[in-house]
Amino acid sequence: MDYTYIASAHNDAVKHLVKLRDRRHRDREKLTILEGYRELTRGLEYGMDILECYFSPEHFLGSNEYPLLETMAKKGILVRQLAPQLLEKVSYRDRPEGLLAVARVKEHRLEDLPVDPNGLYLVAETVEKPGNLGSMLRSADAVNVTGFILCERGTDIYNPNAIRASTGALFSVPLAECSNEEALAWLRKNHIKTLAATPHTDKTYTDVDLTCGVAIIVGAEQTGLTEFWMTQADLPVVIPMLGKIDSLNVSTATTVLLYEAARQRGFKK
Amino acid sequence: MDYTYIASAHNDAVKHLVKLRDRRHRDREKLTILEGYRELTRGLEYGMDILECYFSPEHFLGSNEYPLLETMAKKGILVRQLAPQLLEKVSYRDRPEGLLAVARVKEHRLEDLPVDPNGLYLVAETVEKPGNLGSMLRSADAVNVTGFILCERGTDIYNPNAIRASTGALFSVPLAECSNEEALAWLRKNHIKTLAATPHTDKTYTDVDLTCGVAIIVGAEQTGLTEFWMTQADLPVVIPMLGKIDSLNVSTATTVLLYEAARQRGFKK
Repeated sequence: MDYTYIASAHNDAVKHLVKLRDRRHRDREKLTILEGYRELTRGLEYGMDILECYFSPEHFLGSNEYPLLETMAKKGILVRQLAPQLLEKVSYRDRPEGLLAVARVKEHRLEDLPVDPNGLYLVAETVEKPGNLGSMLRSADAVNVTGFILCERGTDIYNPNAIRASTGALFSVPLAECSNEEALAWLRKNHIKTLAATPHTDKTYTDVDLTCGVAIIVGAEQTGLTEFWMTQADLPVVIPMLGKIDSLNVSTATTVLLYEAARQRGFKK
Repeated sequence: MDYTYIASAHNDAVKHLVKLRDRRHRDREKLTILEGYRELTRGLEYGMDILECYFSPEHFLGSNEYPLLETMAKKGILVRQLAPQLLEKVSYRDRPEGLLAVARVKEHRLEDLPVDPNGLYLVAETVEKPGNLGSMLRSADAVNVTGFILCERGTDIYNPNAIRASTGALFSVPLAECSNEEALAWLRKNHIKTLAATPHTDKTYTDVDLTCGVAIIVGAEQTGLTEFWMTQADLPVVIPMLGKIDSLNVSTATTVLLYEAARQRGFKK
């Protein structure tokens, strides 16, 4: 298949890609950038609305890229080749893989989240770092959470670095974005208990029943959970800290709690 | 107390700090940069050899900085004030806290690592990202590992971003750096079992006894464990992946395994 070749940085499509490196533009246009073979493949698989794809064969790592481009072209996605230095200019990565697409972001509404009275939910308040959010999405997928609620938006969930760190879990995990109050009301309405990790309790996280419908609530990197959740949580638990430091990284703490729930549930799919 | 004030970017000390931003210079001079109130406090507490300290009060976040500077000056550490724009120039951080020191890196030798036949060890092969290494150090401290062996050095353990992400655990966790072969020989000699996470087994990580002397072996971010450890490990285990993606972030996977060991050991200090 032949694709249009773009060699000029003054091309409108290239200028647009450069603009989309800025979160304000992504937010305004409700668009994001998917980059790399894995992200594009997963995005397609999970029904992301991909609008345009750009490639530069000089950066390809393998031989699967051309079939993927053909699949996209057949779906009616505009596919165009970029001069290698232009691909590098618009890429988010230090070592670009030569594939980059513009996709429409999804809206993630609470009312669309699956309801399961025995479900396992994750609620994260104001996560700031795309890498942490991505890692939490990966863990949420790994234990097959029923839903992941992001409260009081911190980082852009469609930040290309979050997408990358999630290794595609951003597309597979059922997500909702809302305020703390909305999340709590929704959980209460659906009889889902809330579990919050705090140093101010004697109850270890392994000593509570996590086989019931439960939502694990985690806070921001620097400040932890806000008073709102601390005072509202049904199950305050502590993750024992046996050394000198006083807290874990937020994504590792989240994963410890999620895997304890998965363990108690017999790792059932 | 009065401190010398440096206002010129041409000052030799400033030029030296700029040089130390480069890993090659840090390696050659066996020096590193500690930045921020917490890192400096922990560094002092755990006996890091701090040579010089620089500050700019315009960036201070609280009022504890001056007493810390006095403590250092009394210990004979050279303390000097920098013009705020110079502190920003030499800082590693987007939001500097106005404190930065030059310290001698420690050598971490296998023969100095504590030997405990019932100990819990962590072995990491070629971790590439300072953020992941820092997060793993934090988790290693949190479960109070007997020792953490870094094999086939990837990232510089004294990379300022690793120090930061470790929140000081770099100073508190007993560390060793060596080759894979040396680590395995040392573990064998001390009768420590080796546990490796792999998808190629039916044995879940929660189904093996982690109360004996055991070393949890984890691999690099992109490539996982090498054949060397895969073939040598006494206990191959799987972390069940219940969703769509096929692996966890390395620091979250490590923490799940460490906390399962801590759980089986009754979270004893």
